[in-house]
Amino acid sequence: MTISIASRFSFCLPQTTDILLQFEAAAIPEQRILSSDTNLTEAEHCAWVPAQDDIGERIWIRAQGDFSVSYRAEVELERQLADISTLRRLEPHDMPGEAVQYLFDSRYCAADRFQTFVDEEFAGTDGGERIAAISDWMKRKLTYSPGASGPQTTALDTFIERRGICRDYAHVMIALARASTIPARYVACYAPGVDPPDFHAVAEVFLDDPNTDGGGTWQLVDPTGMADPSETVKIGVGRDAADVSFLTSFGIADFGDKSVVVKAF
Amino acid sequence: MTISIASRFSFCLPQTTDILLQFEAAAIPEQRILSSDTNLTEAEHCAWVPAQDDIGERIWIRAQGDFSVSYRAEVELERQLADISTLRRLEPHDMPGEAVQYLFDSRYCAADRFQTFVDEEFAGTDGGERIAAISDWMKRKLTYSPGASGPQTTALDTFIERRGICRDYAHVMIALARASTIPARYVACYAPGVDPPDFHAVAEVFLDDPNTDGGGTWQLVDPTGMADPSETVKIGVGRDAADVSFLTSFGIADFGDKSVVVKAF
Amino acid sequence: MTISIASRFSFCLPQTTDILLQFEAAAIPEQRILSSDTNLTEAEHCAWVPAQDDIGERIWIRAQGDFSVSYRAEVELERQLADISTLRRLEPHDMPGEAVQYLFDSRYCAADRFQTFVDEEFAGTDGGERIAAISDWMKRKLTYSPGASGPQTTALDTFIERRGICRDYAHVMIALARASTIPARYVACYAPGVDPPDFHAVAEVFLDDPNTDGGGTWQLVDPTGMADPSETVKIGVGRDAADVSFLTSFGIADFGDKSVVVKAF
Amino acid sequence: MTISIASRFSFCLPQTTDILLQFEAAAIPEQRILSSDTNLTEAEHCAWVPAQDDIGERIWIRAQGDFSVSYRAEVELERQLADISTLRRLEPHDMPGEAVQYLFDSRYCAADRFQTFVDEEFAGTDGGERIAAISDWMKRKLTYSPGASGPQTTALDTFIERRGICRDYAHVMIALARASTIPARYVACYAPGVDPPDFHAVAEVFLDDPNTDGGGTWQLVDPTGMADPSETVKIGVGRDAADVSFLTSFGIADFGDKSVVVKAF
Repeated sequence: MTISIASRFSFCLPQTTDILLQFEAAAIPEQRILSSDTNLTEAEHCAWVPAQDDIGERIWIRAQGDFSVSYRAEVELERQLADISTLRRLEPHDMPGEAVQYLFDSRYCAADRFQTFVDEEFAGTDGGERIAAISDWMKRKLTYSPGASGPQTTALDTFIERRGICRDYAHVMIALARASTIPARYVACYAPGVDPPDFHAVAEVFLDDPNTDGGGTWQLVDPTGMADPSETVKIGVGRDAADVSFLTSFGIADFGDKSVVVKAF
Repeated sequence: MTISIASRFSFCLPQTTDILLQFEAAAIPEQRILSSDTNLTEAEHCAWVPAQDDIGERIWIRAQGDFSVSYRAEVELERQLADISTLRRLEPHDMPGEAVQYLFDSRYCAADRFQTFVDEEFAGTDGGERIAAISDWMKRKLTYSPGASGPQTTALDTFIERRGICRDYAHVMIALARASTIPARYVACYAPGVDPPDFHAVAEVFLDDPNTDGGGTWQLVDPTGMADPSETVKIGVGRDAADVSFLTSFGIADFGDKSVVVKAF
Repeated sequence: MTISIASRFSFCLPQTTDILLQFEAAAIPEQRILSSDTNLTEAEHCAWVPAQDDIGERIWIRAQGDFSVSYRAEVELERQLADISTLRRLEPHDMPGEAVQYLFDSRYCAADRFQTFVDEEFAGTDGGERIAAISDWMKRKLTYSPGASGPQTTALDTFIERRGICRDYAHVMIALARASTIPARYVACYAPGVDPPDFHAVAEVFLDDPNTDGGGTWQLVDPTGMADPSETVKIGVGRDAADVSFLTSFGIADFGDKSVVVKAF
Repeated sequence: MTISIASRFSFCLPQTTDILLQFEAAAIPEQRILSSDTNLTEAEHCAWVPAQDDIGERIWIRAQGDFSVSYRAEVELERQLADISTLRRLEPHDMPGEAVQYLFDSRYCAADRFQTFVDEEFAGTDGGERIAAISDWMKRKLTYSPGASGPQTTALDTFIERRGICRDYAHVMIALARASTIPARYVACYAPGVDPPDFHAVAEVFLDDPNTDGGGTWQLVDPTGMADPSETVKIGVGRDAADVSFLTSFGIADFGDKSVVVKAF
């Protein structure tokens, strides 16, 4: 499966400001970057640094005035997919150290508060079956609703208001998975099925690897149902949206326009 | 400087439950473990895994019934200390990839919301001088007040209510440092000056290393003023208290008693 | 139905402090006070003022040191009861001005945020039938759990954590009723079935009066199922628990002991 | 002082919906309505009901489709003004029953959490002097900043983020006044100095009446500094913005345009 990506966005910095960008497809074994082209307005400083869990890179910019980003890439996906509902939960003491942080509460995902809810609503399910049950529940109870949420919206807010966008869906899935003692992280990505076309976000859960003896594996799950894991190009991962944004500004940034086009061949 | 530590605590698990413990002094270059002795009730499962940033270890336990932990250690500290107020802030594009996550919002430290406050209250200061100014401000405005906060208390709550314990002080320092574009993390530790004696928590900020050309260094700062960095034994680090607790239970755990004795020689 | 009440509580005021007490059965048409006896420690000031909606009275005290309250009463109840599930919702434009405030958000009941939830979870029900459906849902989803909540706990917290006490149950009922455009208020009360015996709290909803033409009526509803409306003695009402507490202190008050005994004859 | 008001706004209701409007100058002793003209789109139902504390009226509308409101009035103000900083605080036990509710926490003003802050920041001041000190503090610390807050923003949020609009300023003033045991309420109003011209909101605090023996008086205070109490026309009052909005919709309402012109003669 080959995916072509064309994204662009612009913003204006009234004064010299540090900006963190993360929009490029990550070069990882499951994603071969066939070609890529990144165009940035010239800046005072510009540095690529490894991103979280060594998945993808972040770009530090220090600039002032109008700034535009344009990116094109072709990516070949060779992702091992599994039927999540058949995967077992890893016992906590079998989890590798790196996975443990994804059990903890984060900015937008206060998982501990959902412990009673998941125990009762999804009683009798565990591991991948639990994730499938959460996914089903979310499809029935939540409405995809652009404009109903904002940058401060947490998994708790979305759980109450029952509306949100991809970011909010990912946060609820992550919170409910962690409350079920399943490590879960946030994945910023490109995917062709997203409507309206935009940067996308899904969740990734850590379950027992069906192909190896011991050890776990990260599995993509999109509770919005819009992105097929076989067509999803990862940009980066984090605890939640606080960690992976295409634009994080450490000062005032007036956002301009944005365009994202993703196609599968 | 040699520090002796004796800590013990107990709890009861009504049913078989996964527990994560983190209470041992971390074996890292600045801390030489001269001797140590960990005693745990026998459990169904017990596994040591590396903790965050490879500082110390966490212990996964799966057990039922009464459980007790007892720990003794002697630790020699050879920490390089600096006068924080003289250290420069690292430009974001000069920060190593690993430090960047400590600029982001976490469960208890929603730093972005304090951006206007730090800009105005601490205008004219930067880097280590900013950290010293925050520390001063906290000493004047906050009251150390056991019982006034709880496990859900965030940096925002403490900022409003002006009272808290070591954990809350660390969260406020971390939030205000990150809002100042200075990476900051949470440090669980042992320190002799803590009153009443207990597990302790301080902050660590990432500033320019005065001894090397380029590259940064983590510096301990205790806004409660109780722990001297030269006498502080690190257990582990994390984004905030959600990441480093001496006891994290993935089910019901009824806490028993606790005792911590720390001495400097 | 005659109800006998004996309650007592004590507290200590380290310095001269204003205290607001509300613990006496309200003298209202549906409750005839057969006898009552209030004993208070002597205070610098002591004044009875009418309480909210002219239901019951509050007592302002200004005192220092140990303070104790003891109250005994016999109350005859002649409450008109209705089968709530058969009552119609009043159209908003038919509601009297006094009822409208009980549609609005209050400290612990941010009702507007539940609008999508009630529309979907309780679709097809309205008025009293909606209240009955909410009550059923709460019985299935929430667990009565002393110690799981505190004075800052809101209806949103309880909705997420699925546990709480009478106060939390009342808040959830009030929030979901208001989100259904049904005025709802908080009722502090005495009731014999409460276990463990204590001050109690229930909700009251404003629905069409079955006996009159036009005009509405307040109906008691206890989502915990512990208090029978025919045996419930109202102390006072308010938007939520912020308005009716048996003890509100405008300074430090160290609470002592408390005892409540309520019997029906 | 005569004030002329011309306001208009419109919205669209996709389906038949209940709407509560409150935009007319209140007919109260201190405000004589010389002339007024209200024009509303014809609706299925339309009913005027008394508003909170009998100050002004609310209009219940039940309608569908495009709806527009246009209002013109001339109001003569004869408000007794006092130098707030000279007014004494009323002892709680001297407060009338109706004022007590304005000491309690409300949706956007969780006053109890600011008790330590006001005690330390404004130590040595009381009553009207305390209100003046809060006003000064707010002028120094907060920035009037349209767009930085929204309908969910509370006094706590604004206290942290240090930015907001008239509504947020009023909420902070109300919270800090109540934390100082001074009853405070929210006032929706028209005032000529508001820039950009819009509906306005200020606070009102209950202090000792300088002209009578015993008894208190409500005094307008605008922490934004834009509205002169002698030129402020009250629309209505409430605990906070949850109680007095020019448009409260119990269903979906798509807001159209709005225009407010206020002049003093």
